[in-house]
Amino acid sequence: MEYKAVKGTRDFLPLQMQKRNYIFNTITSVYKSHGFLQIETPAMENLSTLMGKYGDEGDKLLFKILDSGIFLRQEKFSAFEDEITNNHINKAASMICEKGLRYDLTVPFARFVVNHQNDIVFPFKRYQIQPVWRADKPQKGRYREFYQCDADIIGSDSLMNETELIEIIAEVFSKLKLNVTIKLNNRKILAAIASVIGHEDKITEITVAIDKLDKIGLEGVEQELLNNGFTAQDVEKLRPILLINGTNEEKIKTLSDFIASNEQGKKGIEELEFVLNKCKAINIGNIEFDITLARGLNYYTGAIVEVKANDVAMGSITGGGRYDNLTGIFGLKDVSGVGISFGADRIYDCLEELQLFPDEIMTATDVLFINFGEKENEKCLLLAKQLRTAGLSCEVYPDSAKMQKQMKYANNRNIPFVCLLGENEISNGTIVIKNMLTGNQQTVNQTELTEYFK
Amino acid sequence: MEYKAVKGTRDFLPLQMQKRNYIFNTITSVYKSHGFLQIETPAMENLSTLMGKYGDEGDKLLFKILDSGIFLRQEKFSAFEDEITNNHINKAASMICEKGLRYDLTVPFARFVVNHQNDIVFPFKRYQIQPVWRADKPQKGRYREFYQCDADIIGSDSLMNETELIEIIAEVFSKLKLNVTIKLNNRKILAAIASVIGHEDKITEITVAIDKLDKIGLEGVEQELLNNGFTAQDVEKLRPILLINGTNEEKIKTLSDFIASNEQGKKGIEELEFVLNKCKAINIGNIEFDITLARGLNYYTGAIVEVKANDVAMGSITGGGRYDNLTGIFGLKDVSGVGISFGADRIYDCLEELQLFPDEIMTATDVLFINFGEKENEKCLLLAKQLRTAGLSCEVYPDSAKMQKQMKYANNRNIPFVCLLGENEISNGTIVIKNMLTGNQQTVNQTELTEYFK
Repeated sequence: MEYKAVKGTRDFLPLQMQKRNYIFNTITSVYKSHGFLQIETPAMENLSTLMGKYGDEGDKLLFKILDSGIFLRQEKFSAFEDEITNNHINKAASMICEKGLRYDLTVPFARFVVNHQNDIVFPFKRYQIQPVWRADKPQKGRYREFYQCDADIIGSDSLMNETELIEIIAEVFSKLKLNVTIKLNNRKILAAIASVIGHEDKITEITVAIDKLDKIGLEGVEQELLNNGFTAQDVEKLRPILLINGTNEEKIKTLSDFIASNEQGKKGIEELEFVLNKCKAINIGNIEFDITLARGLNYYTGAIVEVKANDVAMGSITGGGRYDNLTGIFGLKDVSGVGISFGADRIYDCLEELQLFPDEIMTATDVLFINFGEKENEKCLLLAKQLRTAGLSCEVYPDSAKMQKQMKYANNRNIPFVCLLGENEISNGTIVIKNMLTGNQQTVNQTELTEYFK
Repeated sequence: MEYKAVKGTRDFLPLQMQKRNYIFNTITSVYKSHGFLQIETPAMENLSTLMGKYGDEGDKLLFKILDSGIFLRQEKFSAFEDEITNNHINKAASMICEKGLRYDLTVPFARFVVNHQNDIVFPFKRYQIQPVWRADKPQKGRYREFYQCDADIIGSDSLMNETELIEIIAEVFSKLKLNVTIKLNNRKILAAIASVIGHEDKITEITVAIDKLDKIGLEGVEQELLNNGFTAQDVEKLRPILLINGTNEEKIKTLSDFIASNEQGKKGIEELEFVLNKCKAINIGNIEFDITLARGLNYYTGAIVEVKANDVAMGSITGGGRYDNLTGIFGLKDVSGVGISFGADRIYDCLEELQLFPDEIMTATDVLFINFGEKENEKCLLLAKQLRTAGLSCEVYPDSAKMQKQMKYANNRNIPFVCLLGENEISNGTIVIKNMLTGNQQTVNQTELTEYFK
């Protein structure tokens, strides 16, 4: 029998953890520098909290936890069988499962806000970095367990919040040295475009078609629209949007002419311009108005944000937007907000591909003390303690194994410095430091060891 | 309908997170300073990996995850119902559940070592801080989801590893400013005591009885032993152990006389003395040989460690020991090691009760910029950015709300400094800094703001 990690889930080895922590620590440090507060919620939620929040497909993808103890009583056997026989799998499941694993961080956050509304100071700026679980078919780049890194600002309608989250995005990727384009759109603009050509219900079809412009050209897009129930007149009317181009300002000019007096559209442009202007004021240059951006149309009501890496082919690596009603599903009205979520796994892949992980995060241990025997070793323990107090990471090899074995350990672990303290060094109070990269050796007084590494 | 966190699980509010992170960060920093490497394993494991590793009781306490899709086929209905009817709940569960949530970090670590044995450098010093889940009845201080903070050194028999883990324990609690006693025992000594009085199979009964000495006195303990099948002669023989007392050295002297020529006992004392001597050499004073310590007798084979807080009534807050065979259950022989686990929840309660959480961890945001309107605000955004670069955490209030409301936000959030930049300050390039603790206000040049906070 072979024991393995569950399909679609991953063990993280030390080096992977060091790289992942680099990403999480960078995101966390930026969140914290903006005064965001961390919260955590439990891995499992009551299914009543989760079900119906992610559509039928989402309900199926929830991992459900079998009730403890006698999970199905005899008198329910036949009802249970009926549900399964009739292919009501979710209903059958809910007879034996009360709890499920969280599917995202948003629904648990909404429940959290409702439960703790009296302990929260509004506007509430929270961040949350925890794994989520989805019973998806595992495939390359899609996992059943993955981390989300969310930040939201709730209880304030100010567009300064959109601006701050974009500033955070810009800062995170600048710290990670990853060139990105921040794409910005507004749900109200999409709604207005659909409304202007008389198809308010077809926002998605329109944006999906526009998005294919690069691939299939103007003619192809127009053909697709015709196939999707738009008239030649609709397509004609939409042409300025299909041909929209240029700088943010130029695009907004085209759009304004198109939208004309549509109230919702004017509001959308106003919001868009406000955020773009503020971003300019704080020197965020890599932001682009992208009319094809249409993520989260089910819940976003204002700004829509998405981030793409410039130098590597990869889907969206961060996304977010403004929503009007976070907690309504749990009975608390009028909590609007704006949020973003960093896609840690994709960011990891980008940094890996572009070799952007800094060398210094690969080193876990700075100094290894070779073990020459009991007496020498005791001295090493004390010196290691000193170095640790000075902020270095040190190991003392636990066995007085052969020198070769101990040096091999240092090599395999990528430890940059090895300290040697044998009988001679004990008697004259010195220690030999070997630089494992250059091979150079230097002898210093034991009292000067800490100074040496400063 | 009321939506709440699942019973026995917890939401963590920002202030709780700050305190919890203080504990986790302290433990992590010490682990890292000793060159321990972090790993993570998935929340869910195959039930075949988990079942049978924690005894019958443990199997019942595993949270099992319902298989996705059609989890029970019609042709299996009757077999399934038979299992339930015959009260074979675990068997029935295993027909519809392939996976479960991890119950501890040790079994997943063992699987990890077997799976990745070729990617690991031995001796392998790993740490792992992740939640675990147990379907226990929730009660005060017992949760269904809680974090474990484990460190293990595997692939080395050296007693220096025991010493290093005790050093780590001492460092962590010294950093947390929590007075503790580190209790040390050795499984071999317990076995020898049982052997000397001719009851090798009754280690547990003996230690449990000795442990009650403080509560029920010598006579009570001896009576309990008689009730548990020991003869008057056994009890007579055991008396020196029941009366064991004094310093570590004195206790060891008494024990040596008692154990005499028992080989296993001599080995146990040798191990114990080695570790105690090394601890003395590195100035660890708060360590005590405790013959009643008998945790983990099912798997520990050498040293047994436990930590008690001195100034607060609380069970063991950290524990660990030496084991001979970590990975045998997964087919890899001869991997021995030694490990410890910090009990984060209990440590939290100790620090809370003794008010040992430092004030500085309670502050999340250092500076709030009051929002006087659009123009002033833009200047604040740039100044906030400057301060962030200098390492401060800053917020700019998102709305130009009433001053009172903004000041109240600063108060409720415990923000120590508020910066005010109105029309006047814009025109003369200054900014007013209000210290929220003292109420003092000071006007400085905008160019000197960063300097002010240094």
